[in-house]
Amino acid sequence: MICSIVQRTLPAAEVLRTNEVIAFLDHRPVFKGHVLVAPIVHVDTLLDLPPELIQPVVTAAQKVAAAIVAGLGAQGTFVAVNNVVSQSIPHLHVHVVPRTRGDGLRGFFWPRTKYADGEMTGYAQLIKENLDGFNAAPD
Amino acid sequence: MICSIVQRTLPAAEVLRTNEVIAFLDHRPVFKGHVLVAPIVHVDTLLDLPPELIQPVVTAAQKVAAAIVAGLGAQGTFVAVNNVVSQSIPHLHVHVVPRTRGDGLRGFFWPRTKYADGEMTGYAQLIKENLDGFNAAPD
Repeated sequence: MICSIVQRTLPAAEVLRTNEVIAFLDHRPVFKGHVLVAPIVHVDTLLDLPPELIQPVVTAAQKVAAAIVAGLGAQGTFVAVNNVVSQSIPHLHVHVVPRTRGDGLRGFFWPRTKYADGEMTGYAQLIKENLDGFNAAPD
Repeated sequence: MICSIVQRTLPAAEVLRTNEVIAFLDHRPVFKGHVLVAPIVHVDTLLDLPPELIQPVVTAAQKVAAAIVAGLGAQGTFVAVNNVVSQSIPHLHVHVVPRTRGDGLRGFFWPRTKYADGEMTGYAQLIKENLDGFNAAPD
């Protein structure tokens, strides 16, 4: 579906197009002005985004977020990526959503859960062990 | 608060630390294993992240997301940044949240709103006009 927008076989309200990135309005926005930023090449999830495309995609998201604040009078933005679960389209897309205090989205990050005593250490260890030799924090 | 974690004056369950990036467990997780990835230097929001730090921060988020899937058995991840609104700490932090189908977070991106006929064009135009000369899509 994003590939169809790239190829212009599916119409979209584009706000940005470069050789590497496309950005267009989500037609069912969380709030009006909600933009999707995606790499032109098909990449399934954020985890699959190759190093050379990280900066183009994120720079575009930064620019779009700044333009949403400047152009739509938003107070802030929410920038989010669903990987696999809740990902409606298997082509990486970064949501850039205008935010205003009291817009009702605050509820999302609440309620939170809690760790039992000592439980955090186990979770941290499991993640650290799976960082594939990335420069992980020492114990 | 993140600067205090960087300086180790505030304890945290770190999963990763490099010269440029730190990642640690959110102590009030949306789901257990919820990690915050932040640049070591103080940057207020994603919009303020300088180009040279984009790749280190996003690569760390990718690695952490992959480790959450591999280490915790998550089916997917949610990667999100609140800028200004709903941003509890004015130091950029990328949420990396483990996701499992049926975990109840699906509701977040629903319900969506709708544009009236012709309304999308106006929104797209306002965003395009505020892209600061970034290589925007032609009309």
